[in-house]
Amino acid sequence: MTKKSLKIAVIGGGSSYTPELIEGLIRYYDVFPVSELYLVDIPEGAEKLNIIGALAQRMVEESGVPMRIVPTFDRRAAIRGADFVTTQIRVGMLDARSRDERIPLAHHLIGQETTGAGGFAKALRTIPVILDICREMEELAPHAFLINFTNPAGLVTEAVLKYSPIRTVGLCNLPIDTKMQIAELYNRKPEELFIEMAGINHLNWTTKVVIDGIDVTKDFLGRLSDGKSFSMTNIPDLAWDQSFIRSLGALPCAYHRYYYMKNEMLEELLNKLEKQGTTRADDVKAVEAELFELYKQPELKHKPKQLEQRGGAYYSEAAVRLMRSIYNDTGDVQTVNVRNNGIISCLPDDASIEVNCVIKSDGPHPLSLSRPLPTQIRGLLQVVKAYEELTVEAAVHGDYGKALQALTIHPLVGDEQAARAVLDELLQANAAYLPQFQPTCPQ
Amino acid sequence: MTKKSLKIAVIGGGSSYTPELIEGLIRYYDVFPVSELYLVDIPEGAEKLNIIGALAQRMVEESGVPMRIVPTFDRRAAIRGADFVTTQIRVGMLDARSRDERIPLAHHLIGQETTGAGGFAKALRTIPVILDICREMEELAPHAFLINFTNPAGLVTEAVLKYSPIRTVGLCNLPIDTKMQIAELYNRKPEELFIEMAGINHLNWTTKVVIDGIDVTKDFLGRLSDGKSFSMTNIPDLAWDQSFIRSLGALPCAYHRYYYMKNEMLEELLNKLEKQGTTRADDVKAVEAELFELYKQPELKHKPKQLEQRGGAYYSEAAVRLMRSIYNDTGDVQTVNVRNNGIISCLPDDASIEVNCVIKSDGPHPLSLSRPLPTQIRGLLQVVKAYEELTVEAAVHGDYGKALQALTIHPLVGDEQAARAVLDELLQANAAYLPQFQPTCPQ
Amino acid sequence: MTKKSLKIAVIGGGSSYTPELIEGLIRYYDVFPVSELYLVDIPEGAEKLNIIGALAQRMVEESGVPMRIVPTFDRRAAIRGADFVTTQIRVGMLDARSRDERIPLAHHLIGQETTGAGGFAKALRTIPVILDICREMEELAPHAFLINFTNPAGLVTEAVLKYSPIRTVGLCNLPIDTKMQIAELYNRKPEELFIEMAGINHLNWTTKVVIDGIDVTKDFLGRLSDGKSFSMTNIPDLAWDQSFIRSLGALPCAYHRYYYMKNEMLEELLNKLEKQGTTRADDVKAVEAELFELYKQPELKHKPKQLEQRGGAYYSEAAVRLMRSIYNDTGDVQTVNVRNNGIISCLPDDASIEVNCVIKSDGPHPLSLSRPLPTQIRGLLQVVKAYEELTVEAAVHGDYGKALQALTIHPLVGDEQAARAVLDELLQANAAYLPQFQPTCPQ
Amino acid sequence: MTKKSLKIAVIGGGSSYTPELIEGLIRYYDVFPVSELYLVDIPEGAEKLNIIGALAQRMVEESGVPMRIVPTFDRRAAIRGADFVTTQIRVGMLDARSRDERIPLAHHLIGQETTGAGGFAKALRTIPVILDICREMEELAPHAFLINFTNPAGLVTEAVLKYSPIRTVGLCNLPIDTKMQIAELYNRKPEELFIEMAGINHLNWTTKVVIDGIDVTKDFLGRLSDGKSFSMTNIPDLAWDQSFIRSLGALPCAYHRYYYMKNEMLEELLNKLEKQGTTRADDVKAVEAELFELYKQPELKHKPKQLEQRGGAYYSEAAVRLMRSIYNDTGDVQTVNVRNNGIISCLPDDASIEVNCVIKSDGPHPLSLSRPLPTQIRGLLQVVKAYEELTVEAAVHGDYGKALQALTIHPLVGDEQAARAVLDELLQANAAYLPQFQPTCPQ
Repeated sequence: MTKKSLKIAVIGGGSSYTPELIEGLIRYYDVFPVSELYLVDIPEGAEKLNIIGALAQRMVEESGVPMRIVPTFDRRAAIRGADFVTTQIRVGMLDARSRDERIPLAHHLIGQETTGAGGFAKALRTIPVILDICREMEELAPHAFLINFTNPAGLVTEAVLKYSPIRTVGLCNLPIDTKMQIAELYNRKPEELFIEMAGINHLNWTTKVVIDGIDVTKDFLGRLSDGKSFSMTNIPDLAWDQSFIRSLGALPCAYHRYYYMKNEMLEELLNKLEKQGTTRADDVKAVEAELFELYKQPELKHKPKQLEQRGGAYYSEAAVRLMRSIYNDTGDVQTVNVRNNGIISCLPDDASIEVNCVIKSDGPHPLSLSRPLPTQIRGLLQVVKAYEELTVEAAVHGDYGKALQALTIHPLVGDEQAARAVLDELLQANAAYLPQFQPTCPQ
Repeated sequence: MTKKSLKIAVIGGGSSYTPELIEGLIRYYDVFPVSELYLVDIPEGAEKLNIIGALAQRMVEESGVPMRIVPTFDRRAAIRGADFVTTQIRVGMLDARSRDERIPLAHHLIGQETTGAGGFAKALRTIPVILDICREMEELAPHAFLINFTNPAGLVTEAVLKYSPIRTVGLCNLPIDTKMQIAELYNRKPEELFIEMAGINHLNWTTKVVIDGIDVTKDFLGRLSDGKSFSMTNIPDLAWDQSFIRSLGALPCAYHRYYYMKNEMLEELLNKLEKQGTTRADDVKAVEAELFELYKQPELKHKPKQLEQRGGAYYSEAAVRLMRSIYNDTGDVQTVNVRNNGIISCLPDDASIEVNCVIKSDGPHPLSLSRPLPTQIRGLLQVVKAYEELTVEAAVHGDYGKALQALTIHPLVGDEQAARAVLDELLQANAAYLPQFQPTCPQ
Repeated sequence: MTKKSLKIAVIGGGSSYTPELIEGLIRYYDVFPVSELYLVDIPEGAEKLNIIGALAQRMVEESGVPMRIVPTFDRRAAIRGADFVTTQIRVGMLDARSRDERIPLAHHLIGQETTGAGGFAKALRTIPVILDICREMEELAPHAFLINFTNPAGLVTEAVLKYSPIRTVGLCNLPIDTKMQIAELYNRKPEELFIEMAGINHLNWTTKVVIDGIDVTKDFLGRLSDGKSFSMTNIPDLAWDQSFIRSLGALPCAYHRYYYMKNEMLEELLNKLEKQGTTRADDVKAVEAELFELYKQPELKHKPKQLEQRGGAYYSEAAVRLMRSIYNDTGDVQTVNVRNNGIISCLPDDASIEVNCVIKSDGPHPLSLSRPLPTQIRGLLQVVKAYEELTVEAAVHGDYGKALQALTIHPLVGDEQAARAVLDELLQANAAYLPQFQPTCPQ
Repeated sequence: MTKKSLKIAVIGGGSSYTPELIEGLIRYYDVFPVSELYLVDIPEGAEKLNIIGALAQRMVEESGVPMRIVPTFDRRAAIRGADFVTTQIRVGMLDARSRDERIPLAHHLIGQETTGAGGFAKALRTIPVILDICREMEELAPHAFLINFTNPAGLVTEAVLKYSPIRTVGLCNLPIDTKMQIAELYNRKPEELFIEMAGINHLNWTTKVVIDGIDVTKDFLGRLSDGKSFSMTNIPDLAWDQSFIRSLGALPCAYHRYYYMKNEMLEELLNKLEKQGTTRADDVKAVEAELFELYKQPELKHKPKQLEQRGGAYYSEAAVRLMRSIYNDTGDVQTVNVRNNGIISCLPDDASIEVNCVIKSDGPHPLSLSRPLPTQIRGLLQVVKAYEELTVEAAVHGDYGKALQALTIHPLVGDEQAARAVLDELLQANAAYLPQFQPTCPQ
């Protein structure tokens, strides 16, 4: 881009993560000159938006960069003429997340924000809203990029790729987080490593590590057996078994625990719910409440340290670096969610995948994998991607049958009766957010 | 073939199913002139082999066809110069099956002869023996066809396709059984229907039914909701849900119950074990004991009716028709297990699949599918095939890691710790039959 | 089909080939009871249609079968309620063919009815008319099969597959002719051989010959070097070189001579034109004139022998057998033009290919190839198929650019300037038949 | 790489291009510290090697960089411990090239160094020698990269990828040259453009041009019609037709003239031979003689300007930048020859292709194409790649049949008889360099 000043619309601007983003935009201002930052939210989120808007204003003033902060409920005004639209929305807010976690658990199924039946419900609620945003972008900012952080990011990205002409990139901080941890393991700077990651969002394997031109993957997998665990703040940290990792031939991501350690993870979630009466949503609510208390303090003019515990490490890094690289045609490698196009040969060409991409001014260009995915990875990946394809169809068309089939083949459900039971309850509980399923739901 | 008389070697000739085969060979003698029928078994099966041999002799005499029955322990003599070698072996006999069923159940996993962890153990025991037979065929009957009925038939077929030059066809009576039931549903002769079946052995969907040139699939799926269930003798008969079948867009096979009705099926198996102290192996033992009592009776000169309850309906039909069609270059369509070769585009080319084939003198030629498999079928099929690929590798090379990965991604296990626990116990319990895993098992 | 009597509409009923068809319909009447045979033609062909109609009437009367012959110009009446619509049209009649042959020759390019620039021009004229017929069928006979004999049959079939919902099969007598010749070579009945043919119409290789279950391909290719040539009446018969056939690993079809013997064939065609002042169209005109003289004779009540010299050997056989097999759900193997669907893995799924198919009541089901096509076949096949794809687009959309690209990459043109020159002249000469190219042609 | 000083072995060090390379190595010394540069040649090239060695020595001294120049005939000593091995050999020297050009012309076929029958002969001579070098590398420098400039670079690269474990990259200056010319057209720096190039060496299309994040391909193709021609020094510069380029939808490379303008190019080459009695080899001989006269002059201490007329513009740029990027893990995008791996979905996975790659310390990582290649490109590309696959097999195994099939399907030959005639003459003329074809050639 040749523009000297940029406009960004942040949909879901009242999110507790926003200060991360602000901090990144300030830090990178000289190479990524954002002059207008619209923070959009819905009236129900007015209080949070006000707090965030004021904090953002203070941060910007403190930094001295000429960035105008515009908190607003007017999404169309925010999108009009924007160069980038970022989405970090939570349709139904944390209460919906709480239900996404509790309803599956009541059926003795993993209840999690982005995977399994919980993530499925979130996708049904979120995809129609994102596609609405895309339609507004077609009208008001047709050349802008949609940078999507909203979970489940892989599903949302696939829906946009299939149902909108808008250019989009799906983003998650897990890949950069993994890279940082591997760099630390080797006492190297992250840019000194080449890490091959392949899979889909939240089901992504690190299949190769190269240092100084040498493939050190075997050594790397060996080191993992010293109790290194590479987890995320928000996921119970159970260590991988040595021989499992060796025969897998790759490092699973943190979310893989819900698959490979399904029984233990379910036990943990059930225990927590039983003993503490809470799920992760409750923790997040508590953390958020604290954060917003902090954010309110007029003397706070920087991103507070406590935000990192929230699970968003490197979130700013990932988000701002992606937009900066597009703006500057940087050509560096980032791991993002894009159209497959044959890169992962065992998945459909039009699937969203999460792989290394070179970021150029026209967006990400995925890199070829240096070797095909091994059978053990392929099998799990294919069935979860089939679930995702069905879920996108269900979300877009309000198709009960597709929804039922999606959950039935999902490895964390895997039973038609269980799928139907949890589906019916999820549809009921989310009826207010699922116009596409009315009046046919539940059958 | 132009030969006027044929030699068949039946490996596992002492099986209680053999009278089915004899009956078929007699019935089709005029178009399929078998003059020498070697019934091979191992010394441990001497008693059964004697009983079967004598019964076969009486049946042949009664029929008047000039077929020589040769019961023997000398497998090489049986194979030498054979035109067809059929296998219906049970490595470890029914006691091993009993363990295949009980060990998974002890881990709260489906314990079944051919699917899940039980079928996996059976594959590990069986594949090396079948490949031994193939090596003997290479030497003694290199142009013969190996007609394999031994379960898990899909896995065994894939192992032979990948590790032997011998021409092989994997056979199951489930497809013909399904076709018969659909014909009955429509009051038609089976040959009046064209049924498209696609998938792999014991995971095979009926995706299309054509009558008089008209695609009646939709009507057919609708009829299934009247409580029609299409099960097999040996599988608990739970009815499919209407809307599930409709959104699936296909008729699942009987074994699909272990996947789509995993929870209920597990409950049934556990109940049976708990209340009756038995698994299916025990039932089969009882049925077999009765059958062999029957077979012993010198006045018995025909296949007894009771054999059909054993689960082998149309077994003779399937087996003899296949060989007859090859011999006569018949060109009729049969549903058998063959190399994929791109027919199911979402599976590897070298996978074994179970599809419609035209049977010619050089074996089966698979038919193109009239439409690609829908996403819901694709997802489940791909993950189970990945399990099968890993299992073949584990069975051939004695590779613990591949075995662990195979079970971990299997939809009926789906957890690394559970996979490891049941694997270790299965390897221990089957150590006598798994030389390929010594001395590395269990780790 | 369960109908007891059938209606067929023959579009181009005034063709000199029609008596072949009549003869076949009479011969197969007991298994394929056609009660109404509409012979449709255009007013310009009135004279021929009258002659053919009268001859057909006499043939039917002589045979005693209750088949009503209806010569007509009313295509819609003919199509209404038909069970089969066959097409054997020649848009622009033999004069157009003459131009298709002469214009390329004037540019020193192969001028031939179905291949190269000549076949290209024929495709541009024919495809829009065939698609018109399809639209009428959608309205008047939506379940009928379109059996297309009109050349270039592969291109026409691909256009229908891509641009119409009508069920179609493309048919050529070359495969059956080849099979007959191979059977003769081995002194066998054709049904005793399994011949694997693969490719596209008029570019079809015989890649495998099986007799009595044994692959005799190597022996077969060896025999070809004894001067056997397997040509067609209408194609100059130049013998294949031994070592060429051996390294090719397949028998080329007669039309391959235009590719593999391009220089010699061009020489032949130019010589004929120079010395005799004629092309094949002129010969055909002469033969047709004679034939119609014959047909007129009131005492002629059978297909005359002379028709076979016309190049249509086994035409009746191919045509009637295909319809009979569909009607009777015969399940025999015929080599016809259908949608690829992955059978030839190096061509697009939606390409028309010519391969072995099992003919069932719902049409042809292609058989898997027993081995992938070798590189030398793949290369030529892919470039000609790319030409065909572009030509279909050019014909349907009147796209000059696609037309130019199609001819530029065609192995019988292979030069942009030559392509443009011959294209412009062909478009000019055929302007009356190419409304889709007006007013943009030539550029 | 972490090494502080590097060793390079230049096989064919006596080439007139070498001063280009020296100049580049000097210029980039601070980021790519080559301390040992072995210039290897054969005794027949002793004189040239001496001249080049001395010039290189003077250039290095003048520059002051601490690079040791080692001219040698001892290839093993040069390879031992090298970090990079580059090849710029000419098996049979310019006399062989002269024959490669003249023999096809005598058969009225394009005679060119790298395409058609001429390039084919060069491949047969060159591939065995390169594979010998690879075997020495396996023993003496197994981790080194083989950077191959030797033509036909695509064929050579494919042979190494298929028949050697050595890491290799095939390099040509045409892509960088094209990029430079496009940058000039837009008055931009090359690094400001993103150019998508796809195809194989010397058959490479520029399918997309992006500037400032905007796809300007259409504008770009339009500009080409102003008579811009983008040729290379060594290829007759005929302008592309406007409507051809528009319907092609891409910029062809200079070598495409031999395909798209086959007739005119053949005319040019024949004219030159007839009128001047020379081919390009003769011109090159003359230029080289002049260059070596220049090189001899003791006062010459820089790369002379005249070298650029030789056709090697940006050769140094391409070569040194590639090695520098590997050494420094630069991650910039370069267009080089690598294993396909699904990037060009219509070509085999193991084919060599020429596409954009990110250059990392472990070599090039190809980038996904932003859209599939259009049909018109696909068709030509596939048939030429099939020719290349057959040629690699012919070159490695000395297989006459593959050689015959390769030339028969080549668009610049396209006739079996012509193919055989030119093949036999080429094999005869090159017998001294083709041990793999003895004693079976010619048949």
